[in-house]
Amino acid sequence: MITTADIKRIRSLAQKKFRDESGLFVVEGEKMVAEALASSFAVEAVYRQEEIGEKAMERISSLSSPSPALAVVRQKPESPLTLPDKGLCLVLDGIRDPGNLGTLLRIAAWFGIEAVYASPDSVDWYNPKVVQATMGALFRVPFHTAGLPTLCRSVAAKGGKVYGTFLDGADLYSRPLSNGEEAPALLLIGNEADGIRPDVATTVTDRLFIPRYPACAEGQESLNAAVAAAVAVAEFRRRATR
Amino acid sequence: MITTADIKRIRSLAQKKFRDESGLFVVEGEKMVAEALASSFAVEAVYRQEEIGEKAMERISSLSSPSPALAVVRQKPESPLTLPDKGLCLVLDGIRDPGNLGTLLRIAAWFGIEAVYASPDSVDWYNPKVVQATMGALFRVPFHTAGLPTLCRSVAAKGGKVYGTFLDGADLYSRPLSNGEEAPALLLIGNEADGIRPDVATTVTDRLFIPRYPACAEGQESLNAAVAAAVAVAEFRRRATR
Repeated sequence: MITTADIKRIRSLAQKKFRDESGLFVVEGEKMVAEALASSFAVEAVYRQEEIGEKAMERISSLSSPSPALAVVRQKPESPLTLPDKGLCLVLDGIRDPGNLGTLLRIAAWFGIEAVYASPDSVDWYNPKVVQATMGALFRVPFHTAGLPTLCRSVAAKGGKVYGTFLDGADLYSRPLSNGEEAPALLLIGNEADGIRPDVATTVTDRLFIPRYPACAEGQESLNAAVAAAVAVAEFRRRATR
Repeated sequence: MITTADIKRIRSLAQKKFRDESGLFVVEGEKMVAEALASSFAVEAVYRQEEIGEKAMERISSLSSPSPALAVVRQKPESPLTLPDKGLCLVLDGIRDPGNLGTLLRIAAWFGIEAVYASPDSVDWYNPKVVQATMGALFRVPFHTAGLPTLCRSVAAKGGKVYGTFLDGADLYSRPLSNGEEAPALLLIGNEADGIRPDVATTVTDRLFIPRYPACAEGQESLNAAVAAAVAVAEFRRRATR
């Protein structure tokens, strides 16, 4: 059912180097495997505990409690950068935490984001912790790796908006917000430690701020990158529908 | 500077059993240690890499890259349940993921939440991953462990509101929302897998739903517990200020 070579090959996919070489990645859990099979991704193999046994499943799983099913899936081909025509896109500048990237894809799926772009130094889309944190959104949201300064400048040149959140930005609730009905709108989300970096920040057309409460509050508070993205995107979508 | 017994004792605090026995917990990182020292929490000891050496720091740290400072801090005494008088509180029903609990405390600090309550089966407030994920908010937001059905019923009996998010709830943006100006308001956040459990759900006075976009979207999307909390709390606070 499963050979020692298979086990070794599957285990190696926990490392980016071997994912890059093979163009494959791993998906775990009954629901995630079902979503992979129903998606446009090519599923190379499915392993079920009832077929390969508990011991083999423990060896190929990267979860602390292995699930009953695991699939090896082919990565999407990397296509040359195409700009969005319209709609609201998320643009991620150096997101490092796999849980954050997965959560951001899940947010994008919930709020109907057109596409998600990430800088080349962001965590790998196919990192096992990213894949699991997406809860399947990986299969449903278009995502691309892209040089962000070029992407943002091109969108601005087409008349689109480039939004970003900054501590000195304007109150999110007091600004006009475009959902990209006529020209694309990008919402930049910064790195966990450094925020939006200078080479990208200079391309921003609209600097926003998520107000604290009470508004006069001071101190050392901050919001997690995915949380800030969710609050901002929810407000963009609220405006579109009211 | 640091004895073998100290090292053993500090390492043991990674486990809830030993945290409960000793009433202590561990904080790591220069910023976090500084915040602990500036807080109302009693700091029992601070260890700095320049004093104890890199090897000892590696042994006492639970981080993959140990930071230059670590503190052993005394937990707050558990006080008998006191109901909030007013204000908006977060109420967490069985949050299991330490990163989620930490992020929820960080959200609470940003949005000036009165207090955070969690059911006894939630992850421990002093779990090292919770502490680190709060980015210091643990020292600034009042938090309590409480039996949630009793808490919620008592607040409702005082004329307060008990909000919860449900897939069949009413559109968040179309409902009146109280920030607890006159009687306390509770916002319930459900467990990652099961949502708000029946014994607590029956106490809810206002069932809310965070709309998807577009509104007609169907499918298997969901939001992470902390993300849903952030989107809802941001809307409560927006209403309070506009």
